[in-house]
Amino acid sequence: MPKVKKAKVRKKRKTKKVKTISEKRKHIYFFGGGKAQGGEKLKDLLGGKGAGLAEMTNIGVPVPPGFTISTEVCNLFYKNDMSLPQKLNKEIAENLKKVEKLVRAKFGDTKNPLLVSVRSGAKFSMPGMMDTILNLGLNEKTTEGLIQKTKNDRFAYDSYRRFIQMFGNVVLGIDKSEFEKIIEKKKEEHRIKMDASLLVEDLKDIISKFKRKIKSKSGEDFPQDPFVQLEMAIEAVFKSWNNPRAIHYRKLNQIPSNLGTAVNIQTMVFGNMGENSLTGVGFTRNPSTGEKKLFGEYLDNAQGEDVVAGIRTPKQIEKLEKERTDLFKKLLFITKKLERHYKDIQDFEFTVQEGKLYMLQTRTGKRTAHAAVKIAVDMVKEKLISKQEAIRRIEPSQLDQLLHPIIDPDAKVEIIAQGLAASPGAASGKIVFSAEDAVKLANSEENVILVRKETNPDDISGMAVAVGILTARGGMTSHAAVVARGMGIPCIVGCEEIRVNEERKVFTVKGYILREKDNISINGTTGEVILGIASTIQPALTGEFGEFMEWTDQIRKLGVRANADIPKDAEQAIKFGAEGIGLCRTEHMFFAKDRLPIVREMILAKTKEEREAALNKLLPFQKSDFKGLFEVMKGFPVTIRTLDPPLHEFLPKKEDLLVEIAELKAKNEEPEKIKEKESLLARVEELSEFNPMLGHRGCRLGIVYPEMTEMQAKAIFEAACELAKQKKVVVPEVMIPLVGTLEEFKNQKEIVVRVAEETMKKYKVRIKYLVGTMIEIPRASLTADEIASEAEFFSFGTNDMTQMVYGYSRDDAGKFIRYYIEHGILPFDPFVSIDQKGVGQIIAMGVKKGRSKRPDLKIGICGEHGGDPESVIFCHEIGLDYVSCSPYRIPIARLAAAQAVVGRQAYTTV
Amino acid sequence: MPKVKKAKVRKKRKTKKVKTISEKRKHIYFFGGGKAQGGEKLKDLLGGKGAGLAEMTNIGVPVPPGFTISTEVCNLFYKNDMSLPQKLNKEIAENLKKVEKLVRAKFGDTKNPLLVSVRSGAKFSMPGMMDTILNLGLNEKTTEGLIQKTKNDRFAYDSYRRFIQMFGNVVLGIDKSEFEKIIEKKKEEHRIKMDASLLVEDLKDIISKFKRKIKSKSGEDFPQDPFVQLEMAIEAVFKSWNNPRAIHYRKLNQIPSNLGTAVNIQTMVFGNMGENSLTGVGFTRNPSTGEKKLFGEYLDNAQGEDVVAGIRTPKQIEKLEKERTDLFKKLLFITKKLERHYKDIQDFEFTVQEGKLYMLQTRTGKRTAHAAVKIAVDMVKEKLISKQEAIRRIEPSQLDQLLHPIIDPDAKVEIIAQGLAASPGAASGKIVFSAEDAVKLANSEENVILVRKETNPDDISGMAVAVGILTARGGMTSHAAVVARGMGIPCIVGCEEIRVNEERKVFTVKGYILREKDNISINGTTGEVILGIASTIQPALTGEFGEFMEWTDQIRKLGVRANADIPKDAEQAIKFGAEGIGLCRTEHMFFAKDRLPIVREMILAKTKEEREAALNKLLPFQKSDFKGLFEVMKGFPVTIRTLDPPLHEFLPKKEDLLVEIAELKAKNEEPEKIKEKESLLARVEELSEFNPMLGHRGCRLGIVYPEMTEMQAKAIFEAACELAKQKKVVVPEVMIPLVGTLEEFKNQKEIVVRVAEETMKKYKVRIKYLVGTMIEIPRASLTADEIASEAEFFSFGTNDMTQMVYGYSRDDAGKFIRYYIEHGILPFDPFVSIDQKGVGQIIAMGVKKGRSKRPDLKIGICGEHGGDPESVIFCHEIGLDYVSCSPYRIPIARLAAAQAVVGRQAYTTV
Repeated sequence: MPKVKKAKVRKKRKTKKVKTISEKRKHIYFFGGGKAQGGEKLKDLLGGKGAGLAEMTNIGVPVPPGFTISTEVCNLFYKNDMSLPQKLNKEIAENLKKVEKLVRAKFGDTKNPLLVSVRSGAKFSMPGMMDTILNLGLNEKTTEGLIQKTKNDRFAYDSYRRFIQMFGNVVLGIDKSEFEKIIEKKKEEHRIKMDASLLVEDLKDIISKFKRKIKSKSGEDFPQDPFVQLEMAIEAVFKSWNNPRAIHYRKLNQIPSNLGTAVNIQTMVFGNMGENSLTGVGFTRNPSTGEKKLFGEYLDNAQGEDVVAGIRTPKQIEKLEKERTDLFKKLLFITKKLERHYKDIQDFEFTVQEGKLYMLQTRTGKRTAHAAVKIAVDMVKEKLISKQEAIRRIEPSQLDQLLHPIIDPDAKVEIIAQGLAASPGAASGKIVFSAEDAVKLANSEENVILVRKETNPDDISGMAVAVGILTARGGMTSHAAVVARGMGIPCIVGCEEIRVNEERKVFTVKGYILREKDNISINGTTGEVILGIASTIQPALTGEFGEFMEWTDQIRKLGVRANADIPKDAEQAIKFGAEGIGLCRTEHMFFAKDRLPIVREMILAKTKEEREAALNKLLPFQKSDFKGLFEVMKGFPVTIRTLDPPLHEFLPKKEDLLVEIAELKAKNEEPEKIKEKESLLARVEELSEFNPMLGHRGCRLGIVYPEMTEMQAKAIFEAACELAKQKKVVVPEVMIPLVGTLEEFKNQKEIVVRVAEETMKKYKVRIKYLVGTMIEIPRASLTADEIASEAEFFSFGTNDMTQMVYGYSRDDAGKFIRYYIEHGILPFDPFVSIDQKGVGQIIAMGVKKGRSKRPDLKIGICGEHGGDPESVIFCHEIGLDYVSCSPYRIPIARLAAAQAVVGRQAYTTV
Repeated sequence: MPKVKKAKVRKKRKTKKVKTISEKRKHIYFFGGGKAQGGEKLKDLLGGKGAGLAEMTNIGVPVPPGFTISTEVCNLFYKNDMSLPQKLNKEIAENLKKVEKLVRAKFGDTKNPLLVSVRSGAKFSMPGMMDTILNLGLNEKTTEGLIQKTKNDRFAYDSYRRFIQMFGNVVLGIDKSEFEKIIEKKKEEHRIKMDASLLVEDLKDIISKFKRKIKSKSGEDFPQDPFVQLEMAIEAVFKSWNNPRAIHYRKLNQIPSNLGTAVNIQTMVFGNMGENSLTGVGFTRNPSTGEKKLFGEYLDNAQGEDVVAGIRTPKQIEKLEKERTDLFKKLLFITKKLERHYKDIQDFEFTVQEGKLYMLQTRTGKRTAHAAVKIAVDMVKEKLISKQEAIRRIEPSQLDQLLHPIIDPDAKVEIIAQGLAASPGAASGKIVFSAEDAVKLANSEENVILVRKETNPDDISGMAVAVGILTARGGMTSHAAVVARGMGIPCIVGCEEIRVNEERKVFTVKGYILREKDNISINGTTGEVILGIASTIQPALTGEFGEFMEWTDQIRKLGVRANADIPKDAEQAIKFGAEGIGLCRTEHMFFAKDRLPIVREMILAKTKEEREAALNKLLPFQKSDFKGLFEVMKGFPVTIRTLDPPLHEFLPKKEDLLVEIAELKAKNEEPEKIKEKESLLARVEELSEFNPMLGHRGCRLGIVYPEMTEMQAKAIFEAACELAKQKKVVVPEVMIPLVGTLEEFKNQKEIVVRVAEETMKKYKVRIKYLVGTMIEIPRASLTADEIASEAEFFSFGTNDMTQMVYGYSRDDAGKFIRYYIEHGILPFDPFVSIDQKGVGQIIAMGVKKGRSKRPDLKIGICGEHGGDPESVIFCHEIGLDYVSCSPYRIPIARLAAAQAVVGRQAYTTV
């Protein structure tokens, strides 16, 4: 009910606002002569560009004067059936007067004409909208005036030509090529290549042809009245707000459509007015390395367009220092001022017209992760910003770039397919199509990339030796993706363009046929599959990065643990700052070569006795695994989950067996072997399930086969006790998976506690330990108060929880989830970032209910979401104690946890 | 927090209570001489039996006098380390005095001894507890007294013998066989067969051997002091309260263990005191048919034991009317009185000792469903009870017996296996192992029973022609179970004892080998598989049943609809009282022979155009299906669900294709065919999913392939419009399945509404229709407020909801759910009855949130739970508008819905 009320209130306010605009508010904000009516704070009204121009003007930066028509006018324009408000013309005229006074020229004057640029500018930078019209105000007569004023007829005609071309295209909607064809024809006539070689006469001819083209295409003459030109340009800007491309972009980025765009009208300055003119762009620091040194390039006697066209090679800004020391010093002074003012690296445009420097734009500079960290740390040291501000500024997911090798951004690569970027980093190597081949080829010291339709636990051995993994199917939390992230191996999944034939050892894509041992590269950060070996960069962790991460630790409240199954991963996790293991998947230890046969023995056992015999053989392996983990973790808590996956994952595939048997039978050979395979098949069939994700797994195994839990508890506590005897600190936390009812948990806890007490008695040592549960079944969250009466900690398994709350199998949903996101049905992949509305709601409910029974209940999460910044912040907000994630995402989680405290900044990345 | 408080209060009260008992409350309640200290209202204290004896005494029924030791004493006994309270002996003595006075005999007297029976009696009848000791008070001396009193030494010694035997067994814990062996030996000596042939001398010898046995087994002499006998017997009753069997029973039936048992001590009366004595049992009405006529049997000159032993054939009670009219009249008078008093059929025991009639017990009589309905209706007509009371009394699930043929209870059958009773009713026929064989054999007019490992949608055609279905796997909501219930076909699932080999067309169980065309019978009401053809009874729906069901309709608030896919089922549903269709599964129409090829064409289509062409071919089929349904439902609403199952269900199985291809290849033949199969396999593989239940199904299909939803909407509204043109009332409700987000629903609703409006425009007719959604994904319930902003009705799909809230696949979970229930981890199968704590919580949340947005939101459920009485009551409580269930469960739902209003009675069934 309160929600409904709120909506009403909001509606009322809106109506009121509209009234205010049309009746009282000013439509236009002037800037120029060292003073502006707006500033950075009026971004909503002036858009980003307009606010920036106003702000620069106010702080004394030389900006060509002009004015900004506010975003409210855009909304009025749409309200009034696409017509500009009546009062507007009057306001435009008033503001033009002010500009004319400042620059001593007159709009439409035939002797000393004022020329302006017209640019759109919304609150958020938005591709798809109209960009720029330059030289507005030129017509037959004012062009003559410009010639008189500049004594440069070529410049004047060229300016006029450019204006007609831009106006025809962006205001009148005539295809660019129509104009280009005319120019091309003229150049062919003269057999010249460069526009610059066109003579005044040529330009004149082109201008008249342009005009005829406009008449023929639009049915009307090119407007000669500068005021008409201006009005049409303003309307064109407003119309471009509702371009299909702009609408699509807003939808994609969840930008409200009622923000509107502003229009900036500004005096033209020319960097192409002769030898004493130039134009350039730059950054206040190096956006790639972060080095504190002006960075940029410029072109003498040129317009901005020319820099983009790439016809002449621009000069490095260092050259300016040598050639035009005075200008360079001025620029340095101004840009330093801008940086001090905005307290961040600036990306600026400047123009020198006949020796006078003007700043045309400044905005926050995009930068690499490397630079972002260095700049943030430097600025703290320069006392420009606080540590908190530094933390707010770094986009956590950007840190990924610092933790993995990347494809050299300057390398020329051929991208042949695009999949989901499942595990970051770049890798190159030879293709293999099976785990066995991967192991074989890797043994001969080759880098291998494992390519499969999808992976399953059978492939672990091959995945472990691969430098990269590529699968045709699966989503962001498919088996391949989860395992690869855990191992820190670059991985692309769900690359549905590729057709993999594992049997024939070949995959095809877009006409390419790639066979075993062919070279490819994968970019797990972007999802791109690249032909051949691409050169990579091994980024170094700079000192600033370490320093920065320490600051995050000082600030965050949320603990960060690692999901790690083996000592090697745990070591990596410790290096990245983990404060414990939040999830050790014991079953990952079961797939090792020396263990799998014993595991199968256990599964195929026909009696409890046989099963126990096999379990006894597994015990020493598990025990030594746990000992290794405890030792690496040096007193940090280690959360060990009891066996989770369905047993058939450890057996050969049903289909493979079926085919083998059919083949043997068809050949009418080896009856013995057929029998053996058939009996194995019988057990596989017995264990096979329609929906294994919802089948006999998790604690359901340990309940039906209590001897399994018993063995695992024994391995954990014998390992712990042996180390405790050596005076080492061990903190085991035993976690029961897939609990849905209190009774299930009690059943398993009883076994664990009994074994723990027996073992400690036997070793004559006492260890502090906890027995808790994963909350991953919706019912567990719904009845968390009951479960907390017995469970000593909770760890939310958000992967399974998401699967069940949405009813999406993470192994299958890749296809339609992608469709959903592309078509706006899902705003994002809920397996990547916690769906706060649904999954988050049930998690928050679980936290509240759990703590209502046990106020000091320790609660964490150990799903893949533990390494997603948005999700980490959510975990902080609902009061969790820690998140646990793959080792390679720990720095990201640490930063996100700190941002949960100090806030984060919407931030533009490279 | 309030919960915790409550618990504390309860604890306090309990302590207080215990104090009260030990200090103030009386321990013993007397009954006799036409007056009793207790009555039916003190059932908590006196137990069921004690309360009944007191009540009978109070209303003037002749009952042998005695007294009841209260259940509180039992609790004190356990509190005091298994010893009786000190005051008790005094109270016993006082009460014995009263009895002695009434019957003019004295406990322990050597001339005129009072003999008593000692019986346990808890609030709820409980097997596993001590039952009865008769003739207590006899010893060497009192036996002599009894001889003097009765002049019947054989009677006296036989009574003594029986007493020692019972005492030795139930009080001293000596195995029954020890005593039986002694008697057998004696009979062998004399080469006699009947106990009755033993002479006085034999009995004396047996008595002394019994005593020696007792000494040797228990180490102590058989107690001669009647007071010691009594104390030991009382203690034995109390101890039996905590028998393992009793504890297990309480746990199973959720009976609190602190209730305790009472002990009834009552004057012995003897039906074996000569020709003028007899004993019998009876019912006030016929418990099988409900006929209003005394029903029962008796034995002259016998004790209760003898009736049970079955050595002599008892006489029908009609005989008593002829032979002993006076006694019969008295009995009739008394039992009528009892029935009028208790207002229900009574199950009574009586004894005539030397011409005097005593009632020994009365209790509510168990009865068949048939009798239950007739008795309830009759009693309303007799003004004995109200209609409400009649409704309260019938156990809804019992009605099942009235709706299906049953196995003749008198028939001798050989049960060879036990499975889950998935769909009620009995069926006999010839075994087949595939759908094709079922169709073939059924075509030659045979009754067929389809036996499979499990069924899937491919089997529908075979299931439809079978008279019964038996599967080795699956749970109560597996495919076979759901479809069979929907079709009203008897079905047993999860019969794991049987080993089915579909290929070889044979199944084995317990040494039996059953082949195709062998006869079996199945009892879908009990889950029993029977060898050969068992004779069945076709129960008629009597007039009383119809009348009774009308009463339920007058009272209930909840609507009852049917899950029905085809006109035949809808007709059945209407007959059973359905008020609409709550779920029409359109995909069931897709499996028909003439449609499946078109469906496959649609699925295999490579372009949208091809797909649309196939859909256009399906359109007329669907349209005529819907027309049929609308016509049958005559203006009742028809809820049609758009396509729900994953597409691969309509294609051949991957495994089958794999095997076929492997075989073809091994033979090195027919390369064309291999190619064709391989291309089919490729599509099957593309569509195959690891967890289809969580895969690409439900609205996810209609979103990715909007043309499917479009075709279905077209079929629905063209059918509706054509009928509307003929002035027929049609109320289509289009239901979108598996919605998890508002956007999904909006996407599909948009299509349906657009097609509906277009079609109505085309036909120039207006129809009222609704577009709503199934709430079966947890997220939909969690965000029901959002979804209700667009959805015009909700229907909870509790099958899927239960699957996802528990994380149980209903196709796979059968195995461990059974284990869970057997081991007390689950109290019941959540697929059978709604788990109110978890699933119910999220449903209630959905109702609340949905109505918060749309107060008049129509809400129903259409899962299998719609036919489960407990769940129906829950649906009423949370304010649903209707439940929808299989046609054959509609009467059950109607009754349960009425009980939701008037309450229900814990009721004992046959």
